[in-house]
Amino acid sequence: MNISQLRRHMQEKEIDLTIFLNAGFEPNPNMFYFSGYSGAGLLAIPKKQQAFLMVPEMEASKAKRLNFKIIEKPKGKRFFQILKQHSKAKTIGLETENFSILALKELRKQFKRIKIKDISKACYDIRKVKCADEVKIIKQGCKITDEIMLDCFKNFKKFKTESEVKAYLEYNAKKKGCDLAFPTIVASGKNSALAHHQTEDKRLTKGFCIIDFGVKYKGYCTDITRTIYLGKPKKQEIELYNILLGCQNSTIKQVKIGARCADLFIHAQKQLGKYAKYFNHGLGHGIGAQIHESPNLYTESKDVLVKDMTFTIEPGIYLKDSGIRIEDDILVTDKGYEILTKTEKGLITI
Amino acid sequence: MNISQLRRHMQEKEIDLTIFLNAGFEPNPNMFYFSGYSGAGLLAIPKKQQAFLMVPEMEASKAKRLNFKIIEKPKGKRFFQILKQHSKAKTIGLETENFSILALKELRKQFKRIKIKDISKACYDIRKVKCADEVKIIKQGCKITDEIMLDCFKNFKKFKTESEVKAYLEYNAKKKGCDLAFPTIVASGKNSALAHHQTEDKRLTKGFCIIDFGVKYKGYCTDITRTIYLGKPKKQEIELYNILLGCQNSTIKQVKIGARCADLFIHAQKQLGKYAKYFNHGLGHGIGAQIHESPNLYTESKDVLVKDMTFTIEPGIYLKDSGIRIEDDILVTDKGYEILTKTEKGLITI
Repeated sequence: MNISQLRRHMQEKEIDLTIFLNAGFEPNPNMFYFSGYSGAGLLAIPKKQQAFLMVPEMEASKAKRLNFKIIEKPKGKRFFQILKQHSKAKTIGLETENFSILALKELRKQFKRIKIKDISKACYDIRKVKCADEVKIIKQGCKITDEIMLDCFKNFKKFKTESEVKAYLEYNAKKKGCDLAFPTIVASGKNSALAHHQTEDKRLTKGFCIIDFGVKYKGYCTDITRTIYLGKPKKQEIELYNILLGCQNSTIKQVKIGARCADLFIHAQKQLGKYAKYFNHGLGHGIGAQIHESPNLYTESKDVLVKDMTFTIEPGIYLKDSGIRIEDDILVTDKGYEILTKTEKGLITI
Repeated sequence: MNISQLRRHMQEKEIDLTIFLNAGFEPNPNMFYFSGYSGAGLLAIPKKQQAFLMVPEMEASKAKRLNFKIIEKPKGKRFFQILKQHSKAKTIGLETENFSILALKELRKQFKRIKIKDISKACYDIRKVKCADEVKIIKQGCKITDEIMLDCFKNFKKFKTESEVKAYLEYNAKKKGCDLAFPTIVASGKNSALAHHQTEDKRLTKGFCIIDFGVKYKGYCTDITRTIYLGKPKKQEIELYNILLGCQNSTIKQVKIGARCADLFIHAQKQLGKYAKYFNHGLGHGIGAQIHESPNLYTESKDVLVKDMTFTIEPGIYLKDSGIRIEDDILVTDKGYEILTKTEKGLITI
């Protein structure tokens, strides 16, 4: 919740007021990061005065549990109407990637002749290095994720469909008081060839089965993928799996303060040799309040690793009729790295 | 999937091309409605030529299962770059409430000097009257929702925390191949006083317990709320419940073609008598591809009921330390209405 860092950015860019808006069910990650609040509302961070959350009457009791200044928005009033009573800002910072054309039009009705500046990148930059509390939460989230994955493997024999596996994983996340970081992917047989397969109420079929799952624990995301084998793998399938596993392990070993994300990607590609062309997505992404955040681990990334970044490393190989992917969550440390997800990586056959 | 209705609107408003964009995990309801596609991508509906979906390579195999023209977006290219190759539109329709400032900036880079027109309202208007297939799906979704609620009540004694109830409901939804329409609310004891309580890993406590749950079945949302009582209710608590139930039943009976939504709201308030001031939210909302859509049932609504609208009726009473809400999904029919959710409404005590 590093408001002071954001304020330094605001000072530099001559921004009087930064606002974050959440009109729907999905939490706004920046609003959550800077205030701890994940409901509908508006977070206002003036350059100097106290920051405050403006929330609909209905959400007020929930919001008041936070250690934050709360203003109730009366029914029938618009957020920006009330904001106008509290601010004379001339330059407003907002997330242009997350702020709708309609909201801007309404904002301009109340604040005439304002200048708008995008603060999306500044927020990603602030959020990409985690503080001690965040690291602790993400570590704990990864521990819970490991427990759920292990339990899932132990019970795997009783699942008949992809949906059942997904439902079981997500049930256990919720029983442990977590939300989901993203919709779980369970892709068996031919479906494993699609990196973003949508889990179906479809019988599990023989062959590789990709399980990509993550929880949201105290507002922070985890993300793990394991590929298991249903049935008896052929020799060349085991070889393929081990090439990917070797690639993933070797790439993780490259993680250290100062390493360039683009170089990690290139390293992973090299390890895959002739299979590099079947690796058709990024190597990884930052995890935090959002499931995809900075740093980005792909060819054109300009990100350089800094202590206390948390991100995934997840190479994959997708052939015509089957695919594999292995993904862990990594923390950059003084000594290099720590692997936060510890679920077994040898090929499990079921 | 009424593209022809949208095209009539486009003709009227002189819109050359309508676009819907989905950059994230959450399906874009209009994109889903007009194309059946719920992944990341861009849906383009030209005034006259064939509509097409543009999807990232990774999503192409999934998209190709639909009966729709698909264009793959090569890696490294931007959606609007490719769109430019397929369209010379001068006036573009888009959802201003759902289209970010950043996306508009990128669109304008490719399409210089275009005029933008908002099509949000037109889409809500088209979607608010359901076709026969949609009604069938929503009815089936409500049937599944009822089954899950009934099963939950039968097993209620074994739940210790709010999270467990939520996890159980959501698990059963997924086992039946459904998604969730929204995050389930389970609010017991004092928590029931918050209409939008966030379910916690907190022991169920005596008193009223609100359960607000809905599934997404074949892309369509359901939404039901029941309030049960944990322990033995006092006489005045039973009376309060029956006032609310009487209000809900009586309001449903007002539903017919031509009824004004604002009048339904006023009717409900009258039924609540001295408790009207403790009813602090809308009476209901349309359900469909989105959990909150048209019509809106609140005081200032201008919506008038039309055959084949589907919406909720959900009055509530929220006192200082406890709250109750009862919600059903309603279909407007020639004869008046049909209640689609059929879970028992007499006060269940556990």
